Amino acid sequence: MRDLNAKSPTKHFLAPFSDNTVQPPPVWLMRQAGRYLPEYRKTRADAGSFLDLCYAPKLAAEVTLQPIRRYGFDAAILFSDILVVPDALGQNVRFAEGEGPRLDPVKTVADLHRLDLSNTHYKFAKVCETVALLSKELPRETALIGFCGAPWTVATYMAEGRGSSDQAAARSWAYRDRQGFSELIGLLTEASIVYLSGQVDAGANALQIFDSWAGSLAEDEFERWVIAPTARIVAEIRRRHPQVPIIGFPRGAAALLQKYIDGTNVDGVSCDTSCPLSVMQAIAKTGKVVQGNLDPLLLVTGGEALDARADAICQAMAGLPFVFNLGHGIVPETPPENVARLVHRIRKTGN
Amino acid sequence: MRDLNAKSPTKHFLAPFSDNTVQPPPVWLMRQAGRYLPEYRKTRADAGSFLDLCYAPKLAAEVTLQPIRRYGFDAAILFSDILVVPDALGQNVRFAEGEGPRLDPVKTVADLHRLDLSNTHYKFAKVCETVALLSKELPRETALIGFCGAPWTVATYMAEGRGSSDQAAARSWAYRDRQGFSELIGLLTEASIVYLSGQVDAGANALQIFDSWAGSLAEDEFERWVIAPTARIVAEIRRRHPQVPIIGFPRGAAALLQKYIDGTNVDGVSCDTSCPLSVMQAIAKTGKVVQGNLDPLLLVTGGEALDARADAICQAMAGLPFVFNLGHGIVPETPPENVARLVHRIRKTGN
Repeated sequence: MRDLNAKSPTKHFLAPFSDNTVQPPPVWLMRQAGRYLPEYRKTRADAGSFLDLCYAPKLAAEVTLQPIRRYGFDAAILFSDILVVPDALGQNVRFAEGEGPRLDPVKTVADLHRLDLSNTHYKFAKVCETVALLSKELPRETALIGFCGAPWTVATYMAEGRGSSDQAAARSWAYRDRQGFSELIGLLTEASIVYLSGQVDAGANALQIFDSWAGSLAEDEFERWVIAPTARIVAEIRRRHPQVPIIGFPRGAAALLQKYIDGTNVDGVSCDTSCPLSVMQAIAKTGKVVQGNLDPLLLVTGGEALDARADAICQAMAGLPFVFNLGHGIVPETPPENVARLVHRIRKTGN
Repeated sequence: MRDLNAKSPTKHFLAPFSDNTVQPPPVWLMRQAGRYLPEYRKTRADAGSFLDLCYAPKLAAEVTLQPIRRYGFDAAILFSDILVVPDALGQNVRFAEGEGPRLDPVKTVADLHRLDLSNTHYKFAKVCETVALLSKELPRETALIGFCGAPWTVATYMAEGRGSSDQAAARSWAYRDRQGFSELIGLLTEASIVYLSGQVDAGANALQIFDSWAGSLAEDEFERWVIAPTARIVAEIRRRHPQVPIIGFPRGAAALLQKYIDGTNVDGVSCDTSCPLSVMQAIAKTGKVVQGNLDPLLLVTGGEALDARADAICQAMAGLPFVFNLGHGIVPETPPENVARLVHRIRKTGN
């Protein structure tokens, strides 16, 4: 195993990446900073638009810190959005309240040529300023995770102009015009490298690449648009920053998960809720760090159903390189006390 | 292998269910009757509401026959909808044009108790009348497939009141009140048995159980709400109609697909687009019939990309018990000539 983060032995989150036997497992939760927290809603209301918040270092750092103060998670994840990359490249991105993102769609190579990597400097710098603030303000024992959306998933929003259930615009473009779509993926790959590298330079201790729509592709397209660009990002970030672990989250990759791990060479993989515990165990036994995979809806339900499943996950992964997390992000309806209950449970039963 | 459909040796579609080496493979396509066909749009315009069409035997038989006339598929699938079951049970179901289904949601056990299996007779009889018409009108060599939605998938619509991307209403109900949700699944299981059995009595040669949202569940919930009720339906239909093959379509089951096959004892499984060909081969080598899994968007694109993938699928599955199909339904934007091209290609290269 590589000597990851040798300089930060005090951060519990990083332990599984160089030592596979930490108990209790480190814990953080995807979308741990967000609308389920009253303090987030207050900061959000003061911030203007959602993207304004992402580009306001003090406010973005504040919302990143909120769940750390409440729950003492082992890692903070930079508060930002995967659509910062297309926005910084020059695509018009806005967030309509309660409606999700809207973008002026990129449908052709001509649209694509209006985007420019050299545009990104100012907006990426704002995000990196947030990272720098956080790396000063976070408790010494708390790791800071930077992130980006994977090129495929970001491309699905760019092509569709919004979220979609089947990613038809991007998938069709890829079939119709492989060369043009490959240019889009290539641009996003290079932008992601610049963006993640900047986050590490500013103080991120680990990185996660979110590929929320990896599950919609046939195997050959998955290799082309998910594995290949992610492998390029991982290789280049690792060359520049060999001490920083990189976690991939190919949501829905399912039967292609092992191929993703082998093909991208990520240090760890975040597993979605539908991933069987036996698959998570098998991956962890190969030495890769596995993260996951509690159903976020169990955090809404709470009670014994939550305890039972959290226990089952911890028991299955005991003694293996594992980070406790959800299978997807926290939903806004989550009662904050259920999150406290979960963290307490993991730390108690994991010991 | 069981002696399936020994009475219908002339139907090419049925061959893989008792003999694993037919070439070219039988072919039909999910949603082969539908909006991409001008003759469907014409019949649809004459029919009143979408559910009116489902309950009008002559019109429903007509739209079922349309793609058989055009393309000579090896199987026709009854034109109907998975929401016929909740509608027949007494839930208010309507289809707003271009918006998908809307239901008065079933949220509690009290709502559930207003539904009644004895309500279903009249509406199920209308559907079975369509099946009976078809079994007379279809060419002798064309198999007729009956179907229903799996209890889990139907329950997601019933609980949410519409389609949803995360099935949160049903999944939350299942966590919050396992007993109550289990009652809903139990009612749907019994209704599905009555419904499918009626379709076989009316002349269906094979059955497919559509579980479009099987992929959203954690493993333990998947066993409870997908595998167990499907296993009950399969066992009971097989007891009554041992000659009729049953195909399961647990879309997104992914890493849980083999568990689904083992647990439900279906005769065949329909694989979604993201299922790797190596997985389909491995399943087929165990003697189960595999159906799938061309990306429906390739039928929109057409051309060499379509040919290449169709060839790759046929080559991978050559000599194995296989039925060519899509990984999901035909989309409305599909040019009908691309369907003709595909069918021609399969029959030419498969020989």
